Amino acid sequence: MALIVKKFGGSSVATTEKILAVAERILNEKKPDDKIVVVVSAMGDSTDNLINLAEGIDREPYKANYLREMDMLLTTGEQVSIALLAMAFKKFGQPAISLTGSMIGMRTNSVHTKGRILGIKPQRVHEELNKGQIVVVAGFQGADKFGDPVTLGRGGSDTSAVALAGALHADECEIFTDVDGVYSADPRIVKNARKMKEITYFEMLEMARLGAGVMQPRSVEMGQYFNIPIHVRSTFTNDTGTIIREDYTVEDKDFEIRGVAHDQKVAKIAVLGVSNTPGIAHTIFSALAKANIDVDMIVQSIRNIDKNITDMVFTIALEDLAEAKKVVDRVAERVNASSVLVEEDVAKVSIVGAGMLGSPGIAARMFGALARADINIDIISTSEISVSCLIKASQLTEAVNSIHDEFFSD
Amino acid sequence: MALIVKKFGGSSVATTEKILAVAERILNEKKPDDKIVVVVSAMGDSTDNLINLAEGIDREPYKANYLREMDMLLTTGEQVSIALLAMAFKKFGQPAISLTGSMIGMRTNSVHTKGRILGIKPQRVHEELNKGQIVVVAGFQGADKFGDPVTLGRGGSDTSAVALAGALHADECEIFTDVDGVYSADPRIVKNARKMKEITYFEMLEMARLGAGVMQPRSVEMGQYFNIPIHVRSTFTNDTGTIIREDYTVEDKDFEIRGVAHDQKVAKIAVLGVSNTPGIAHTIFSALAKANIDVDMIVQSIRNIDKNITDMVFTIALEDLAEAKKVVDRVAERVNASSVLVEEDVAKVSIVGAGMLGSPGIAARMFGALARADINIDIISTSEISVSCLIKASQLTEAVNSIHDEFFSD
Repeated sequence: MALIVKKFGGSSVATTEKILAVAERILNEKKPDDKIVVVVSAMGDSTDNLINLAEGIDREPYKANYLREMDMLLTTGEQVSIALLAMAFKKFGQPAISLTGSMIGMRTNSVHTKGRILGIKPQRVHEELNKGQIVVVAGFQGADKFGDPVTLGRGGSDTSAVALAGALHADECEIFTDVDGVYSADPRIVKNARKMKEITYFEMLEMARLGAGVMQPRSVEMGQYFNIPIHVRSTFTNDTGTIIREDYTVEDKDFEIRGVAHDQKVAKIAVLGVSNTPGIAHTIFSALAKANIDVDMIVQSIRNIDKNITDMVFTIALEDLAEAKKVVDRVAERVNASSVLVEEDVAKVSIVGAGMLGSPGIAARMFGALARADINIDIISTSEISVSCLIKASQLTEAVNSIHDEFFSD
Repeated sequence: MALIVKKFGGSSVATTEKILAVAERILNEKKPDDKIVVVVSAMGDSTDNLINLAEGIDREPYKANYLREMDMLLTTGEQVSIALLAMAFKKFGQPAISLTGSMIGMRTNSVHTKGRILGIKPQRVHEELNKGQIVVVAGFQGADKFGDPVTLGRGGSDTSAVALAGALHADECEIFTDVDGVYSADPRIVKNARKMKEITYFEMLEMARLGAGVMQPRSVEMGQYFNIPIHVRSTFTNDTGTIIREDYTVEDKDFEIRGVAHDQKVAKIAVLGVSNTPGIAHTIFSALAKANIDVDMIVQSIRNIDKNITDMVFTIALEDLAEAKKVVDRVAERVNASSVLVEEDVAKVSIVGAGMLGSPGIAARMFGALARADINIDIISTSEISVSCLIKASQLTEAVNSIHDEFFSD
């Protein structure tokens, strides 16, 4: 007997035909004694439709004082899909029951539309499982201390599935998605990318942080916290996908690195001609921190050692660019910078792998691969288990492929 | 200061434009100190759309083991409209908050899709009103002892509005609808029907029971139980409508009867040629009761006194006809009836008024009006405050008009 949490995203339940197919698939795989919890998102574009309705009331439905009502509105999306999926199981003769986020005791803070999970008391889930029911749970949502519905923000359904698996002490959490696992690079860019059998939480987190879209970092953190194996697999096939876990169980570590990640949603800001005095970096980056803008790569370079003039260059998420520019322009005036340059045509390519710890040659091989492809590196940054290079966005595909070839060709 | 519960039906909130109009209208009428609770139904045909979705899973979504999931599905309809209406108030600068049936402590039994209210603990409503919020509540729904959503069945939004008004000790419950009050007869049938200023719970209940569609009997019962005045008024005008209350406060009782009600959704069943022995009526009607079929008018007539042969004729709701026919056919065989006849082309016309108690001439005037219009009466039945006649459906309009003329012409 195994207790398994399975999560299906919105595209897997976009129509009633697909919902029936999901139910059928789960029943085909289910062993008689298995206890199954299914976490689902809202059907296809139903969330967009709900947002459109809200825009009929106000063109800016995400204003701060609307957010509680947006959550009241948006949580209906999953409530529809759980009801229909539970009906689909019953149609096939399988007892099933749907439960909302609030009903599974998914307690969140009160930050509407971007809630965080504070804890789960899934008593009701255990009760229904013990009655032989498949329990269908609304992902992406919980309730705060007032009992008000709260949505979890981006990637929230994965996060709730993994957190619920943790709270239930499940044997595994399966994330069904439109890709069939975690690859050594994005298979849309690298033709011969390899599907990994396993990857550690630590490396997966770094991959996700560096742009690998398959899992949101928060859900991987949650898996690590509860030590729940996360099985990333395809909605469309029955193949085994990739299991994210604490450590490797099979011999799958022939390669020095685990994968090549990339991120195009970055922008570069350069504050030029600043006097190189103590506190300049602090002035710039504390202003950005106050505006809730994360700074990623940072380079400070001396331009003129005699005049003690320096340039401060850093990257941020592309979506924060407009806000960051405002903040930086203000600060630049205060610190007498000569100018502020912004560049959007940049991308970040990274290699990830715990194996590179104590293997200094690996970074050099990455730079060599880029050099051979005639790609100029703008900024380099490193962490314990990754090396990242900022390059021109137009050269990204070539960069990812040449680095992947360097490490993964037989 | 007044605490007023206002209920708007699905057609009043069918689009976001209409939702904005409802919010504006309420704010225009609101006095600064008024505490306002608004109960709303699901938007226009959103309930039908949800049922269509369920039919995508199973063509018969109302099978018994689906009903809990149907409630999970259907309760999202009101959740959408309350979120949008609360946003609309906020758009106009009015603090507002939406609450589901579960959140206002609307406790029901567990009879899914046809729930009954067991009690209301509206603590949260009081708290939010005291903060100066307009509270927007999902009608038609509550939660059972498990916390599962339950819908109230036909007319449920009116019932929840009136029950909530009772639990809150509100000053009045306003029911906004597409007619502007309660009329002495259906104004679509009788051109010079009169709008009543007031009507008692007792008479309104009888009118509703006898087919007047403006209010469901259960919501009137609820108003009577809590002694909450129910103000039936138009969504489209600001005019005062009809107030349903315990007793008359204005001189509006010039007429011997309160109104003429009619009901076309009836069917007649005749069990012919039954031996007139004790227990025959009991056999037939207990079989129908077991099948949950209400019998309305009953006539037993002796056809042949020598052979001691009788006919048993009765009426039921048209929607129960198929089921009733099955039951009666089975019983008819058992009691050796010569045949069972069914007639759907019938209608019931009734007069209602507490004033007819102790005025024996009133029934005779009704029969006279029908006779003058050359309308044959098939069955007559009476209650303390009403007289009903079964006639041919094709003569209904004429019957209602001639009775109305008899009692309401100046």
